[in-house]
Amino acid sequence: MKNSSDSKVVEMFKHANMSAKIMSVADAFDMKRGGQLSNLHIAYETWGSLNSDKSNVIVIFTGLSASSHVTSSLSDQAPGWWEAMVGEGKAIDTNKYYVICINTLGSCFGSTSPVSLNKQTNQPYRLTFPELTVEDMANASHLLLEKIGIKKIHILIGPSLGGMKALAFSILHNTTVDNMILISTATQALPYAIALRSLQREVIRKDPLWNNGFYSYEKPPLNGVRIARKIGMTSYRSANEWAQRFGRKKSVENKLNQNTFGIENTSFEFEIESYLEHQAVKFQNIFDANCYLYLSRAMDWFDVASLGKSSLDAFSKININKALVLGVDTDTLFPPQQQKEIAENLSLSNAKVEYKELTCIQGHDSFLADTGTFSKEISLFIKNV
Amino acid sequence: MKNSSDSKVVEMFKHANMSAKIMSVADAFDMKRGGQLSNLHIAYETWGSLNSDKSNVIVIFTGLSASSHVTSSLSDQAPGWWEAMVGEGKAIDTNKYYVICINTLGSCFGSTSPVSLNKQTNQPYRLTFPELTVEDMANASHLLLEKIGIKKIHILIGPSLGGMKALAFSILHNTTVDNMILISTATQALPYAIALRSLQREVIRKDPLWNNGFYSYEKPPLNGVRIARKIGMTSYRSANEWAQRFGRKKSVENKLNQNTFGIENTSFEFEIESYLEHQAVKFQNIFDANCYLYLSRAMDWFDVASLGKSSLDAFSKININKALVLGVDTDTLFPPQQQKEIAENLSLSNAKVEYKELTCIQGHDSFLADTGTFSKEISLFIKNV
Repeated sequence: MKNSSDSKVVEMFKHANMSAKIMSVADAFDMKRGGQLSNLHIAYETWGSLNSDKSNVIVIFTGLSASSHVTSSLSDQAPGWWEAMVGEGKAIDTNKYYVICINTLGSCFGSTSPVSLNKQTNQPYRLTFPELTVEDMANASHLLLEKIGIKKIHILIGPSLGGMKALAFSILHNTTVDNMILISTATQALPYAIALRSLQREVIRKDPLWNNGFYSYEKPPLNGVRIARKIGMTSYRSANEWAQRFGRKKSVENKLNQNTFGIENTSFEFEIESYLEHQAVKFQNIFDANCYLYLSRAMDWFDVASLGKSSLDAFSKININKALVLGVDTDTLFPPQQQKEIAENLSLSNAKVEYKELTCIQGHDSFLADTGTFSKEISLFIKNV
Repeated sequence: MKNSSDSKVVEMFKHANMSAKIMSVADAFDMKRGGQLSNLHIAYETWGSLNSDKSNVIVIFTGLSASSHVTSSLSDQAPGWWEAMVGEGKAIDTNKYYVICINTLGSCFGSTSPVSLNKQTNQPYRLTFPELTVEDMANASHLLLEKIGIKKIHILIGPSLGGMKALAFSILHNTTVDNMILISTATQALPYAIALRSLQREVIRKDPLWNNGFYSYEKPPLNGVRIARKIGMTSYRSANEWAQRFGRKKSVENKLNQNTFGIENTSFEFEIESYLEHQAVKFQNIFDANCYLYLSRAMDWFDVASLGKSSLDAFSKININKALVLGVDTDTLFPPQQQKEIAENLSLSNAKVEYKELTCIQGHDSFLADTGTFSKEISLFIKNV
């Protein structure tokens, strides 16, 4: 790719995260499974003010597809992905806390990733990006925090992939984290989740425009990314939520009197189909296909047990005061049993652990959709920590 | 397509069902949503002997992808799709009953379908096949039974799509059915099931080889059909079954030291991925893409309520003596609530209805996988009917 189109790559993704600061955190960064990144940079945003003894830091790790824009700010008033949770007077109160949200290593929203230029070749990494792990994401976040002078995290918060990162971080950098909130996450990926993610990756790879990763950034594999997102979405919400919300309603866009498969190609007949299409089209336009492949596979590979002689041994390295572990009864992707397992393992350390299985209808995405229920729990924990 | 390749079409699918009889049942067959099929033929198989008063008939309607080969026979010793359930001395005892299994209208296993020749054009129907509904499947089955002299069905059995067909049949032909066993089925498709099927169809349509339905039968859209099948499979079993069965085991085919996405293209790293691939490759080689699209959409469209002024009105037309309704606790595609709903609606007629929610770990496919549990219930019902 020429430099002229490199600027288009930047153009393509920057709107997703107008106000992120991008910090160079290492000249050379060794990856867990081999390979090295030169000039590692990590994108992040902050809200609120750091107090004098730097004891009011809350760090938020994101899920698979979120940017560091967790909530709106003066410099970027676009609503963040957890707008109802983070802000002045909210559960994560930016009047009291210095909140840092860190974009994942490997994400196309500012951190070094497969869309970044490899300075040695002056080309985007694409599939020459080294194999990415959750541990690499945690290590890169730690380097960022060092760089900006944060040695202690009062509370580390991670939902979904963010929770995997938080577990890895609290094991690998166990003098940094004081307290932790883990939400709908896992100590290891189970086969149902692996199957769904493997399918998403296969759909992307089978899009002819993917071209073994060497797609044109002007004409990326949108079909693959869009359908992958839809497959993901079937596991992010719950069947019952959809039954209540959509039932068998027909899409308003549905054009009758067309050939069945013609209808499906343009607009979709049932409202559930239009809903998925609408959401997934938004996603295909902002997320890079190769980044998605790397982040998705990293989630499959994650296994706390690999951070010690056993899962128990790995957990024994965690050195925190208090933890809140939240699961959702309707979550099929990171089911409540996995949250209970985390809570039980954390309890074996000296940490004081609270575990709650929340009743929400929105499945895995409840932390985003049912912010009322989650705010209550998170707010209470933060007040008492 | 030339006649020379027509024979290839037949060649492609006949091995799936060596011993099916194919019966011409109507010169002209009107379809519910419009359009007409000429020279309608339906494939079926029979086991056992019809008794003198023709009172020992058990009819089995199949799910989406099964042929009429429900069990082995002298003329075709290949195991059937419900081998453990149907046969001499088994729960559906071919020593006592005359068992008829009917291949679905629209299926590529012998009945008239999108791969059949349209005699008017001397070309396969492909997407000129009229829109297909569950009611058409039921009506075509009724024509077959008339043709072979069966006026009364002692017990009609339908799992999954077969249950939808059985419901439609018992409403549309309500003097024919005496008793009914419905398994893991639905009065109407709910949005989670619609979403999963819609995605499967989209993946097939987006395979470049699909070519708007005009693919070469020598080079059909195998990627699309294979991935569609995998998406389906994520809803046919249960997450817990896979956790117990596969956990995080690595595939024996996994070749290490390959590029990550290279590995995924050839063999798959985790055993769950190899399992899905292996099962789906078997399917891609026997099932026609256009047939899959038609059968899948028919399931979305099905709604008992459309067979009357309301669902209740439609159910009131059913005129049977006894019914057994079986659901499975881990079935997310046709969840037990839907079975309970069927049982409650059937109870409002004069039928004596038994409803059981079975405890099986294999999800929707439990009727195929946990034949021990199902045999017990079905055997008991048949003995007492």
